[in-house]
Amino acid sequence: MSNPHKQHASAAEAKITIEFPDSTKKGYPSGVSVQYIIDNDLKRFKSDALVAKLDDKLVDVFVPLRKGGKLKILTFNDKEGKAVFWHSSSHLLAQAVVELFPGAKLTIGPAVEDGFYYDIDHEPFTQEDMEKIEKRMREIAAKDYMVERLELSKKEAMRLFGTNEYKLELIDEMQDGEISAYQQGNFIDLCRGPHIASTGLIKAVKLTKIAGAYWRGNVKNKQLQRIYGISFPGQKMMDEHLKMLAEAERRDHRKLGKELEWFTFMEESPGAPFFFPKGTVIYNQLLAFIREEYKKRGYQEVITPLMYDKSIWITSGHWEHYRENMFTLKVEGKDFGLKSMNCPSHLLIYKSKSRSYKDLPLRIADFAVLHRNELSGVLGGLTRVRKFIQDDAHIFLAAEMIDDEMNKVFDFLNFIYKDTFNFELSVELSTRPENFMGKIDTWNAAEDTLKKALENKAIKFNINPGEGAFYGPKIDIHVKDALGRNWQLGTIQLDFQQPERFDATYIGQDGQKHRVVMIHRALLGSLERFIGILVEHYAGKLPLWLNPVQVKILTVADRFNEFAQKVKEQYEAAGIRAELDDKSESISYKVRQAELEKVNYVLVIGEKEVNSNTVTVRWRDSANPRETSVMSPDEFMGKALDEIKARK
Amino acid sequence: MSNPHKQHASAAEAKITIEFPDSTKKGYPSGVSVQYIIDNDLKRFKSDALVAKLDDKLVDVFVPLRKGGKLKILTFNDKEGKAVFWHSSSHLLAQAVVELFPGAKLTIGPAVEDGFYYDIDHEPFTQEDMEKIEKRMREIAAKDYMVERLELSKKEAMRLFGTNEYKLELIDEMQDGEISAYQQGNFIDLCRGPHIASTGLIKAVKLTKIAGAYWRGNVKNKQLQRIYGISFPGQKMMDEHLKMLAEAERRDHRKLGKELEWFTFMEESPGAPFFFPKGTVIYNQLLAFIREEYKKRGYQEVITPLMYDKSIWITSGHWEHYRENMFTLKVEGKDFGLKSMNCPSHLLIYKSKSRSYKDLPLRIADFAVLHRNELSGVLGGLTRVRKFIQDDAHIFLAAEMIDDEMNKVFDFLNFIYKDTFNFELSVELSTRPENFMGKIDTWNAAEDTLKKALENKAIKFNINPGEGAFYGPKIDIHVKDALGRNWQLGTIQLDFQQPERFDATYIGQDGQKHRVVMIHRALLGSLERFIGILVEHYAGKLPLWLNPVQVKILTVADRFNEFAQKVKEQYEAAGIRAELDDKSESISYKVRQAELEKVNYVLVIGEKEVNSNTVTVRWRDSANPRETSVMSPDEFMGKALDEIKARK
Repeated sequence: MSNPHKQHASAAEAKITIEFPDSTKKGYPSGVSVQYIIDNDLKRFKSDALVAKLDDKLVDVFVPLRKGGKLKILTFNDKEGKAVFWHSSSHLLAQAVVELFPGAKLTIGPAVEDGFYYDIDHEPFTQEDMEKIEKRMREIAAKDYMVERLELSKKEAMRLFGTNEYKLELIDEMQDGEISAYQQGNFIDLCRGPHIASTGLIKAVKLTKIAGAYWRGNVKNKQLQRIYGISFPGQKMMDEHLKMLAEAERRDHRKLGKELEWFTFMEESPGAPFFFPKGTVIYNQLLAFIREEYKKRGYQEVITPLMYDKSIWITSGHWEHYRENMFTLKVEGKDFGLKSMNCPSHLLIYKSKSRSYKDLPLRIADFAVLHRNELSGVLGGLTRVRKFIQDDAHIFLAAEMIDDEMNKVFDFLNFIYKDTFNFELSVELSTRPENFMGKIDTWNAAEDTLKKALENKAIKFNINPGEGAFYGPKIDIHVKDALGRNWQLGTIQLDFQQPERFDATYIGQDGQKHRVVMIHRALLGSLERFIGILVEHYAGKLPLWLNPVQVKILTVADRFNEFAQKVKEQYEAAGIRAELDDKSESISYKVRQAELEKVNYVLVIGEKEVNSNTVTVRWRDSANPRETSVMSPDEFMGKALDEIKARK
Repeated sequence: MSNPHKQHASAAEAKITIEFPDSTKKGYPSGVSVQYIIDNDLKRFKSDALVAKLDDKLVDVFVPLRKGGKLKILTFNDKEGKAVFWHSSSHLLAQAVVELFPGAKLTIGPAVEDGFYYDIDHEPFTQEDMEKIEKRMREIAAKDYMVERLELSKKEAMRLFGTNEYKLELIDEMQDGEISAYQQGNFIDLCRGPHIASTGLIKAVKLTKIAGAYWRGNVKNKQLQRIYGISFPGQKMMDEHLKMLAEAERRDHRKLGKELEWFTFMEESPGAPFFFPKGTVIYNQLLAFIREEYKKRGYQEVITPLMYDKSIWITSGHWEHYRENMFTLKVEGKDFGLKSMNCPSHLLIYKSKSRSYKDLPLRIADFAVLHRNELSGVLGGLTRVRKFIQDDAHIFLAAEMIDDEMNKVFDFLNFIYKDTFNFELSVELSTRPENFMGKIDTWNAAEDTLKKALENKAIKFNINPGEGAFYGPKIDIHVKDALGRNWQLGTIQLDFQQPERFDATYIGQDGQKHRVVMIHRALLGSLERFIGILVEHYAGKLPLWLNPVQVKILTVADRFNEFAQKVKEQYEAAGIRAELDDKSESISYKVRQAELEKVNYVLVIGEKEVNSNTVTVRWRDSANPRETSVMSPDEFMGKALDEIKARK
């Protein structure tokens, strides 16, 4: 097959100016393709360019440029480059399907967060069909078809897709003059693009699952076959991805939660976890950790009701904007709502007495149970629940205190994420939206304060311009876990609005009433979600201070049980969570059991240990799993207590 | 006026036999009155007999006895004697009202827990009216009218009360031959009695309040004036009672809760307390106390959902029997209920895996938030709430373990009430009712076990025969507070039924499935209620370990603030809740403030203290309020920490 891309570079008539990322500029003949520019002036992208961005518009690298602009080459490392790659992979899938199943009717096939899918009108595909399709995709990729963009009139498009009612429905909704299709080999699909330059760039492909889906998501329409897949520009990336998936499955907190008897879900209460005794230890340790910090950092805990009269939700605006996310009920003929957040409770407490500037900042913390009416369909383990608690606090302060207080909040944030859990932390700072409330000066000052404080505390941040809530700038806390997955956790928000709605004030130094400012902050966020992510991050191998069973003492034979029992009791009295395995099993079996339970320290006690008053210690996280050390029970206790106290 | 009682003793014809409480017996002529027996053979009751009990029936002391039986003389010290006294006092009230307000129509006038009332059809009485009525009551009492019982036919009764439609309605519902009235002076009231022998026994009387009430409690009927009063057979008792009332008002936990900023209620969430930071300290200290004991006593804490699908409430029987006490709501078209108790949650956890006899007793503890749909009209401070938590646990065990486990539970009970809080503890044991479930042998054994264990642990108990729940015998925990008031707190219940409903079993030593037995137990009961009672019991002067502010450090002048601040920080680091009052106020003012805040220890720091590195300590509970002692800051810290640790 001829290469339709070649012609573009020579089709020049007029001049266009291209600006490169380093701000240098260069003139090219109009009609030049990005591929030509790469081949001549951006050779470092030669092997991995997928698509380009001209000013803010994505463009195919093989299409003639008629005007200049700022050019950026996108590769698989760019989010948008990856999406185009996966979109092209869905065309590859579609081509394979129609070649193998000529009766199949294509509908739409987008890229998604983790690959791509194509919805196809066809009877259900078998596992064998799927393997055939996957094989054919590899064959088509290997043929390295050039991809070409076709601009079509509505009439031409109608003729081209005349036997496919889905495509006709789509074309019918399009504007004449704005219709395009992409061709690779004999395969043509209606598509607005852009696409990668040739099928050969797709070096590895895998179909991952098949599911039913309705045309346009409407259950009244015909059910289609949705085939999901994933692809990469290199086999090594595919191997790594598959390894990561297997690892993620191995670490799945729902699976580990059950195996380790930490927590589970039951159909009697959808979306609300049951924490077994061991899981409750983790939960309560996290609470104790946060409470300890609260004490040091001047936060005051309160206990508040869960159910409130509608009137308060009207004042807060939740009744209007958030009602469908709340559980509501009638009591004695009146509407009540189960709280989904603590702010209104804390505003009531704030307003329960007159406040002076001397009382500020007032930091009110609460571990009240929250409920959100998530659809049962979207509930997923601990990461999306209906019932949860947050390490929630609201800080009431004067506007001039924001600077100082934000530094304290970020300090707390670093202490939790960097110092304690060693997570890779970053935040998204969302700034003033168009429909903001309050004064522009306050916003500017607040945003500057936040940026300075983030820099000050060396916290990585991205800015989402205009994405803040209308009531104040907003910070979302993100972490990368051990598998490199990104999770959104807690939040820090400045709020100029709720104090307005609730008329919350303080008496300033001038003796006058002033509007108070409010900071919403939950650093772990939902404890349930945080635990779910912790479990996956550590693959269940929790740090000592959090582990429900910290030490397991194993006896080599029954006659050492008495000694072991004494050691266990000594440890328990000191606050160490120790278990004794005195069953009549082989020591290797017992060690294996303790390993499955992900206990931090296994202490073996036999003849030698009893005679010398020692314990033989195996550390779960040792680089050499066979390594042991021998020490007195007291020495081990001292070391364990230090490690627990350090929360490392 | 002649004494109508005198004749009875001589109207004898046949013989009747009276058995005295010491089991001796004596014959009397039929028609003898109890008064005659007292005058001749039970002279010790002469001055305080109010009414008598013949076998199980209450009888007037002045009415001729036609048959013999076991006789007991009741005085004001007996619950039933007191009730009769107050009932007679309501007649005294009624007589005074109709003498002063001839148009007033009497309806009914019973004794209540704390005195008596009479509902009267009349326009609202003024404060002046009330004073007049009270005065007239004293006058009538002083006239010492003899009380006489009249047996009336329905016709006679109708004629006698012909102008009072309320009495006529009552007479209409009575059986002819069973109608009686009581007369004192010219005043006659329809009444089944019994009554005290004369108005002169009422030595002290006080009307306490007036309220509206509907005839027969039905809002559709006419509103009546309900006059409440209290009376005693001696002025000294009245004085003591009034003193107790004033003291109870002073100690009212709702009042103290607000004054001390411990907790409050808000109309936005009726019946659900808000605990301020200081109240939350009390709450969390109680939780920590119970958790510490749980650890020692082998209880395992879990965390469970609050909202459950209807199906579980049907299984537990709550949907049928308790639904109106629960908050219910619809979620995605299904019925859900907010839990009012933890048993179903714990049965689900119990059943989440197979259990062996080796796992028993399994003690599952939970501090989940509970909700009960109490009518807004009956909500009262912390003692009756809609939202609360309990120190709730369910113990799953084999029937043969009940004995041993109950001893442990009672030991725990004694530890809390006797050893820690020094309450006067007693329990009510309610035994097998007629509609019991399970085997009679199991019940008998269980009841015997409970009695033996209670005796064993020296816990005072009353038996309420046949008053147990149908699913098992039941123990209610009662305490007497510092004002001698009786409060019902926690509960201990054996349950043979829920394990049946939920099909909860264990594998016995024989390898067979057996039905497990369940103990419901909450020793403090509702934490909210317990805190309310504690506050009143201690009049807000909480023991050191529970007090939100344990130590208050006062400086005599600003130049001692630095020293005081260091002492405060040292104490806080050691876990003592210390506050510093460094305001520029006089020391006597500061001491007075600290006293109002009911702080346990006030430490004064001035010139002398700074120079000698000491603190001058005033103890809140010292017999001599001016007593102080001087010691080093370290010495005081040691003492305080010991006291906190001892929880005394």
